[in-house]
Amino acid sequence: MISIDAMGGDRGPAAVIGGIAAAASAHPAVRFVVHGPKDELSRLIAAQGIAARCEIRDATGVVTMDDKPAQVMRNGQATSMWSAIDSVRAGEATVAVSCGNTGALMAISMIRLRRLPGVTRPAIACLWPSRNPTGFNVMLDVGADVKAEAPDLLTYALMGTSYARNGLGIDRPRVGLLNVGTEEHKGRAELKAAHDLIGAAQEAGAFDYVGFVEGTDLPSARVDVIVTDGFTGNVALKTGEGTAKLASEFLREALGGTLLSRLGALLALGSLRRLQARLDPRRVNGGVFLGLNGTVVKSHGSADATGVAAAIGLAVQLAQSGFGAKLAARVASAAMAGQDAIQDTKNGSSK
Amino acid sequence: MISIDAMGGDRGPAAVIGGIAAAASAHPAVRFVVHGPKDELSRLIAAQGIAARCEIRDATGVVTMDDKPAQVMRNGQATSMWSAIDSVRAGEATVAVSCGNTGALMAISMIRLRRLPGVTRPAIACLWPSRNPTGFNVMLDVGADVKAEAPDLLTYALMGTSYARNGLGIDRPRVGLLNVGTEEHKGRAELKAAHDLIGAAQEAGAFDYVGFVEGTDLPSARVDVIVTDGFTGNVALKTGEGTAKLASEFLREALGGTLLSRLGALLALGSLRRLQARLDPRRVNGGVFLGLNGTVVKSHGSADATGVAAAIGLAVQLAQSGFGAKLAARVASAAMAGQDAIQDTKNGSSK
Repeated sequence: MISIDAMGGDRGPAAVIGGIAAAASAHPAVRFVVHGPKDELSRLIAAQGIAARCEIRDATGVVTMDDKPAQVMRNGQATSMWSAIDSVRAGEATVAVSCGNTGALMAISMIRLRRLPGVTRPAIACLWPSRNPTGFNVMLDVGADVKAEAPDLLTYALMGTSYARNGLGIDRPRVGLLNVGTEEHKGRAELKAAHDLIGAAQEAGAFDYVGFVEGTDLPSARVDVIVTDGFTGNVALKTGEGTAKLASEFLREALGGTLLSRLGALLALGSLRRLQARLDPRRVNGGVFLGLNGTVVKSHGSADATGVAAAIGLAVQLAQSGFGAKLAARVASAAMAGQDAIQDTKNGSSK
Repeated sequence: MISIDAMGGDRGPAAVIGGIAAAASAHPAVRFVVHGPKDELSRLIAAQGIAARCEIRDATGVVTMDDKPAQVMRNGQATSMWSAIDSVRAGEATVAVSCGNTGALMAISMIRLRRLPGVTRPAIACLWPSRNPTGFNVMLDVGADVKAEAPDLLTYALMGTSYARNGLGIDRPRVGLLNVGTEEHKGRAELKAAHDLIGAAQEAGAFDYVGFVEGTDLPSARVDVIVTDGFTGNVALKTGEGTAKLASEFLREALGGTLLSRLGALLALGSLRRLQARLDPRRVNGGVFLGLNGTVVKSHGSADATGVAAAIGLAVQLAQSGFGAKLAARVASAAMAGQDAIQDTKNGSSK
């Protein structure tokens, strides 16, 4: 059972219910509990012919993109977002999906699901198009918190490793720490400390640490998991999106420019469509909240039905792999290894 | 006269001298003072037929990419990089160009040229491809320092404005502050303080402040100058480069895929070449160090002759516009406005 917040996205509940319909036909065994105003949702769900697959939870309140997380934490009990998270809290669903306000979703998730033992700062992980065989790298944190200390970055490495293992099927992920250079003396103080911590934890965490990586390495094949604080990760994520969008606009303009190039584009249409699909941010729609007692998939606010279906597909995959329980076990056992590593570093005996 | 460090780039002095030759034919009135091992440079310069345009300063030491800035500051006097900066210090050249180690170049520039009055942290500004009529935005800091306090971010806004005015010909630049969201309550504490400072300085600084911008806005037409700390800016710059490179690789693969698409690509060749030129990082090669008594252009370490020529072209433009003196005047007068703004904010009287 997947719990779905039907409200709060930029395109309204119709896009979300459309996404559920697409996901429902792709995953015939999965059922959905859908949260929002009952009458409106009933109509939309009936129109898609998926009433038998969906249970509706009436919730009249909506968290808007402008609501502040602190307000929502105090007064958000009647919202569809709160209700969607509570389905995971109650154990009736294993994963929740929402297109709504990220800050509010993280705030509600934090207070209703609570952090896993050993996790100080939960993180949002995203998939990044890369030259790796899977086609993706994992990057975290991309916006759960605007800062991270060295032990948080170690936790991100462990959680990202677990996600890469269960989500992308990579047995022994390679972890890199995002910095402004690959030399050991570069960067901020907390990054140098995290460099030592993550290096010391690679055996216990069953990953390989490749050291510092730079922005140019985000799509590279030399790393599977990229660890950074939520401020830097969010800027990098949105910069990558903006650049990819600019490049495809320039491509469209270039190919529309002359008669010859328009003819050429026509001949290359199939290949250009495949290229567009490869760079389509909707295909990798879905940041995952890691470090809580339950998994939450955050879809883009502007996601259309295709984007929502991708986010739900990711939720289904994580639910079916038993990811939540595996991650909890990994962080719990590795938190001790991490503690050891912190101790070692303090004693100067690491490396 | 432009001062050029011929050593320290990944492709050696031949690429630099090749770049000088290209720039020399594009700018017939400009002369160059070139720093490096005399015998080697004489041969390369003679081979390019530009001996009459170049003066050589013998310098046998080379700063490598692995040298730490602190070491170079202590022991770098005999290097070509030091010699190139000293030509600006002595007033014989107005702008220096180097492809070498960024950290070392900034360190030497700081101690030999010293900071402008009113500047605590100098910054590196880069040009970013955008949808603006000029084709570019200015972003700073992209790596001079790994952190920036609120008053530093105000100084970056003033320096970036001056650069956009003199380098891109924008009369009243629009300034945005990079954050993880455009809402006023988001982001780190120093960003909220900088938001107030920059907002209060827009009249005195003759720019328009558009507020917070996100990574997706970097190529947008709603801003001309993007202000951020050097850690975030460096990651964003390299992420953009990496994404653009990935997109063009995917494009090449897509167009090489089938016979039809290869034929199509052939027909569209002219347009695709123009696209490539538009996204070519070498065309905008050259970060500019702002906030010192003298202007320094940092070219990419991996720049070839085309890239070096672009960096030298930028140096020539800045030298001819009298940019250095204008920037100094702007920061000196605006530093007082900035002080006023800081005072206003402390008194709670700004916005």
